[in-house]
Amino acid sequence: MKKFFAEVIGTFMLVFIGTGAVVFGNGTEGLGHLGIALAFGLSIVAAAYSIGTVSGAHLNPAVSIAMFVNKRLSSKDLVNYIVAQVVGAFLATASVFFLLSNSGMSTASLGENALAKGVTPFGGFLFEVIASFIFILVIMTVTSASKGNGKIAGLVIGLSLTLIILVGLNITGLSVNPARSLAPALFVGGAALQQIWIFILAPIVGGILAALVAKNLLETEE
Amino acid sequence: MKKFFAEVIGTFMLVFIGTGAVVFGNGTEGLGHLGIALAFGLSIVAAAYSIGTVSGAHLNPAVSIAMFVNKRLSSKDLVNYIVAQVVGAFLATASVFFLLSNSGMSTASLGENALAKGVTPFGGFLFEVIASFIFILVIMTVTSASKGNGKIAGLVIGLSLTLIILVGLNITGLSVNPARSLAPALFVGGAALQQIWIFILAPIVGGILAALVAKNLLETEE
Amino acid sequence: MKKFFAEVIGTFMLVFIGTGAVVFGNGTEGLGHLGIALAFGLSIVAAAYSIGTVSGAHLNPAVSIAMFVNKRLSSKDLVNYIVAQVVGAFLATASVFFLLSNSGMSTASLGENALAKGVTPFGGFLFEVIASFIFILVIMTVTSASKGNGKIAGLVIGLSLTLIILVGLNITGLSVNPARSLAPALFVGGAALQQIWIFILAPIVGGILAALVAKNLLETEE
Amino acid sequence: MKKFFAEVIGTFMLVFIGTGAVVFGNGTEGLGHLGIALAFGLSIVAAAYSIGTVSGAHLNPAVSIAMFVNKRLSSKDLVNYIVAQVVGAFLATASVFFLLSNSGMSTASLGENALAKGVTPFGGFLFEVIASFIFILVIMTVTSASKGNGKIAGLVIGLSLTLIILVGLNITGLSVNPARSLAPALFVGGAALQQIWIFILAPIVGGILAALVAKNLLETEE
Repeated sequence: MKKFFAEVIGTFMLVFIGTGAVVFGNGTEGLGHLGIALAFGLSIVAAAYSIGTVSGAHLNPAVSIAMFVNKRLSSKDLVNYIVAQVVGAFLATASVFFLLSNSGMSTASLGENALAKGVTPFGGFLFEVIASFIFILVIMTVTSASKGNGKIAGLVIGLSLTLIILVGLNITGLSVNPARSLAPALFVGGAALQQIWIFILAPIVGGILAALVAKNLLETEE
Repeated sequence: MKKFFAEVIGTFMLVFIGTGAVVFGNGTEGLGHLGIALAFGLSIVAAAYSIGTVSGAHLNPAVSIAMFVNKRLSSKDLVNYIVAQVVGAFLATASVFFLLSNSGMSTASLGENALAKGVTPFGGFLFEVIASFIFILVIMTVTSASKGNGKIAGLVIGLSLTLIILVGLNITGLSVNPARSLAPALFVGGAALQQIWIFILAPIVGGILAALVAKNLLETEE
Repeated sequence: MKKFFAEVIGTFMLVFIGTGAVVFGNGTEGLGHLGIALAFGLSIVAAAYSIGTVSGAHLNPAVSIAMFVNKRLSSKDLVNYIVAQVVGAFLATASVFFLLSNSGMSTASLGENALAKGVTPFGGFLFEVIASFIFILVIMTVTSASKGNGKIAGLVIGLSLTLIILVGLNITGLSVNPARSLAPALFVGGAALQQIWIFILAPIVGGILAALVAKNLLETEE
Repeated sequence: MKKFFAEVIGTFMLVFIGTGAVVFGNGTEGLGHLGIALAFGLSIVAAAYSIGTVSGAHLNPAVSIAMFVNKRLSSKDLVNYIVAQVVGAFLATASVFFLLSNSGMSTASLGENALAKGVTPFGGFLFEVIASFIFILVIMTVTSASKGNGKIAGLVIGLSLTLIILVGLNITGLSVNPARSLAPALFVGGAALQQIWIFILAPIVGGILAALVAKNLLETEE
């Protein structure tokens, strides 16, 4: 149960800070792409070195599924983690919504993911698979018992999220995380909700690929 | 007594660098949001790895209160630390004021905290509680004897401050630290002084919440 | 063979993320120089802490040659690594090309290296030698058995790439890596292909110099 | 003698990268303040983890004097280091000059330090003392045998330089390093040369203060 609440708080941090930076950061006039990419990435650093000591700070159903594929998570914990992540993300989006209302700002956009203008669903899907593969391959290795680097794992994972956001912000807004995409999509609807299958499915596909490559090529489970 | 002077110097670093970056950094034309967020965050890195070896580098009454709640600080040291932090912050704001005067620049703004246009007191208060909770939860965990990560604690804490500034700069200017807000408010008066209760109370509420969650959920005091 | 695939994946990460950030990042209106420099640098962090556990994450023929000069790599592995790096870079550029096409964007530029307007071939060559020397000197030291710092080597190397990109973006676009330059040059042709000798030769010269200085001055091979 | 050449190369890195970023980085339209601050800071990271393994990577006469004050450097080595630092900085500025000429760019500015418009000599001097004190206090602590943190010292020191540049760029251009200021001043003359006493004297004063506080308050020499 402690793991459940830890994942709720951790995913809250990720989504509250990440999407909060998008909506409160004044776009490219303010934070800019780099500021948004760092806000998301550093929120993982904060979560990893706080609630991560209890739950491992997955914060992301695709990560938990990859951990399950490589037998680092039981099926019962898998469900437990995913529910916690969705709850945490939902609370975060609700808080962002509430703060926007209390700041006299528009709530039309809540940092949701959507295909940028001109990007095909196939292009967006492919990009999310590649980005999720890179991100989760780093996670599977740096947290592995045999190949890992525990002390700085949180830092490396956070910087890796920053990294793929730098590329993906103009393609899909960068998800790699079904929970992070689902919560704002439910609030704002529209394109974000119609395209939500991409941001649920592609991270999971990329994550499973990463788990398999980590296990078989990088020997992370030995 | 060494701890007292260490906290004075450390809080001086934080406020001198942080608010100095705001007033000398030329706003969004110069440093931008990210530069300001990094200036605050990295000043904690500098303080943690210098004076932090003596005092632990709290630099913040809300942090010291959270440490007291979890019995890591005696009541006598608590008073000692808070006085030192207020003195250090005051010296920093005085130095920034003096340097501005010696640079032919306006001293009307000294990097004070205030609610952004349109933000309600309740919204600002709530945001400061959430931000302080996240920031101080990281601190309580990463410096804990059982769950901590001493070698890189300073780095993680600094990056966590950067993180919440990225979100909060357009909401409250981001305080999470009563000493950091009090000193410039006393110099500039106006809205900063009228709203100072928010920036004293909310960080303390967030800090106490963080101490309780750290202790009971993350088992940091075992 | 595992090392081969590890280098393919790692070099794919570097070139996909780095040149992807250039073409999808909206130039200085979007990511800006710093964003591009961090995308390249952090992609090395991601590669080092994932596939680096198998191959060492050279990702760069000039690095592999320097390792060979200092007898850390056999001649057979040298060929193996270089082929893998070229294949990985080629796959990355092909993916960037494909994604651009699927986003309704121009494929005229793919993040290739070329001399900036006004820069002489000699100036560009000299700069690439100096930048490669600095970059590869850091690599040879931080990964050395006697002088190294294994846990954070990937972080230090990534930040060192970021560093030289900050200087070189307006001179040559910063290569220091023949594989990273060759793949986009083959796709876009023109000046990038005519000048490709600079971006193959200069990094190798800089790398060999770095290997010799590391060995003889810094005693990295003892 | 190895230490001499190590300091030459290290100071070359710092000044070549730092001032190179200023002149090639396109000012605030390109790199911006943050990019310049990171270029300087990360060049220390690169130097620390390469040539620092031989010489300790002082790169700065004010740092070497502080080390001498706290008896970590002999008087013979002090002279040796300072000469090496001046030589390295001079070679760096000469290289920047040469590259600018080979790029069809103006050599009127070479990243020199000078008081910003409106800043009084006293204000500039005071700021440089404070900034040098903060910077060198971090160095003296993080490299100390009793209070240090060897593995990440280079990273912490580099980020601390970044930090004070974020504040000082609009005040003095931020020196804290006599060698870094002297070389460009000799090339460009004018205000930079007339004011060079500030950038030689103030860092030394700040460094000696830091050495004394480190020893007596932070007990770094025990």
